[in-house]
Amino acid sequence: MDYAKKFQVKPGDKVNLDKVDAGFKDQHKSKEDALELIETYNSKLKELQYLLYAENKHSLLICLQGRDAAGKDGTINHVLSTLNPQGCTVSGFKVPSAEEAAHDFLWRYHKAAPARGQVGIFNRSHYEDVLVVRVHSLVPEAIWSKRYDQINDFEKILHNNGTHILKFYLHIDADEQLKRFKKRIDDPQRHWKISESDYTERNYWNDYTSAFESAMEKCSTTHAPWFIIPSNHKWFRNLAISEIIVQTLESLQMKTPEPTVDITQIRKRYHEILQKEEKSKPK
Amino acid sequence: MDYAKKFQVKPGDKVNLDKVDAGFKDQHKSKEDALELIETYNSKLKELQYLLYAENKHSLLICLQGRDAAGKDGTINHVLSTLNPQGCTVSGFKVPSAEEAAHDFLWRYHKAAPARGQVGIFNRSHYEDVLVVRVHSLVPEAIWSKRYDQINDFEKILHNNGTHILKFYLHIDADEQLKRFKKRIDDPQRHWKISESDYTERNYWNDYTSAFESAMEKCSTTHAPWFIIPSNHKWFRNLAISEIIVQTLESLQMKTPEPTVDITQIRKRYHEILQKEEKSKPK
Repeated sequence: MDYAKKFQVKPGDKVNLDKVDAGFKDQHKSKEDALELIETYNSKLKELQYLLYAENKHSLLICLQGRDAAGKDGTINHVLSTLNPQGCTVSGFKVPSAEEAAHDFLWRYHKAAPARGQVGIFNRSHYEDVLVVRVHSLVPEAIWSKRYDQINDFEKILHNNGTHILKFYLHIDADEQLKRFKKRIDDPQRHWKISESDYTERNYWNDYTSAFESAMEKCSTTHAPWFIIPSNHKWFRNLAISEIIVQTLESLQMKTPEPTVDITQIRKRYHEILQKEEKSKPK
Repeated sequence: MDYAKKFQVKPGDKVNLDKVDAGFKDQHKSKEDALELIETYNSKLKELQYLLYAENKHSLLICLQGRDAAGKDGTINHVLSTLNPQGCTVSGFKVPSAEEAAHDFLWRYHKAAPARGQVGIFNRSHYEDVLVVRVHSLVPEAIWSKRYDQINDFEKILHNNGTHILKFYLHIDADEQLKRFKKRIDDPQRHWKISESDYTERNYWNDYTSAFESAMEKCSTTHAPWFIIPSNHKWFRNLAISEIIVQTLESLQMKTPEPTVDITQIRKRYHEILQKEEKSKPK
């Protein structure tokens, strides 16, 4: 199925997250059923990343957003760990440092943008500045409300310089989040990951819903689309995201660059070395 | 086998690369024979990286050095791509930028050092400043000859702040390098990677040998050891490097940190939410 088309928020669309089925899994009956396809996409992804790196012309920026326990880390670990780490950077964004806070809000994200030939992954992104910041009024509305346009401008700059942007909202419903919290409570190995804020933030569920909806309505453009990925089933989330990334990279029609040297000359050079070294070898 | 012990350059050792068998493959008859072990190490590596990340106390710096075609990229792609990209950065070092050149030679390497909880991979490293720089006299001997001590000081600073350093010299012999050059010439998909310098640098084979030997003799310390990895067989190289990394990380006896919250309270909290939400559900 064409998941890019199915899950993309089209410019001008209204978004109503409560109406999107977070448990969607298409025609796949189970994880096992989809695993083969995921493997196929993963190996395609590896090849395409090699081309991206070799061609050194485009770059890819993947932004992952979602509520607590939506699976941002899991997506990185399962989909994106098939990438060669040499061509890939992952950036997380915590509370801004003093230096970061002294700059405009987009400064630190621009700094982390992927170089040509590279894949950049933002685990949370510049959208936090219209999400958590909006929900908790960390800056006045007069300020955050102007940020949507600035985000669009920022993404346009990146796009016009060869960076392809894909933004994934990992959509889980309230029941699924609670199930995942329970799993963490039941597994002592995961206790260190539990924070108070998981529970306090859940009280703002509807405020986050509105904030996510606004962000996707105002900032889903043809050059930097938002996708709402049904993520109750982790394997379906992985499948859909891999497919969309593969499709995007395939559309770039990349190829390995022309050699920078004259291969005929190099071949000659090789045979000269071979002859010379053969001669000097002890008989 | 204890490859860490076998391949480590002990402090005070003389190094004679010509006497080290680059084709060594231990008791393994073939790649297939070793694959299972490599897989075991790779999954251990994944677990240990998770602990490194969770514990957030140590970091690991892996430096890869070797001649052209020795397999630095291949090592990253095969051994180190099993790592979660979220906890791993790869840094390559090209000709210094104007800003970098305006600082001491170690400045840009320090900037790229791994943060706590992270694995940093240097594809070529600060050793280039006593390798290519020495072979081609890019700075006077009076300058490069003082750099060994400075490198030791630099690595001591990192080590004393929780960064564990492993330095791998990927050892191939002259025949193997030529074979790999031939493979590149014969494969049109790889032509873009061929550069003149592969062939010109080969003329300095012995100068590089001396420069590598000096670096390893002067800068293999107990806290930042050099390992000479027989690398004619790529699979053996991968096996040995995985084993050494796994052994090093295991020696740190890491564990997941204590929870930062009171799990009993969190469990109570969870049940409160559950009850509240059950009540408000439409019957």
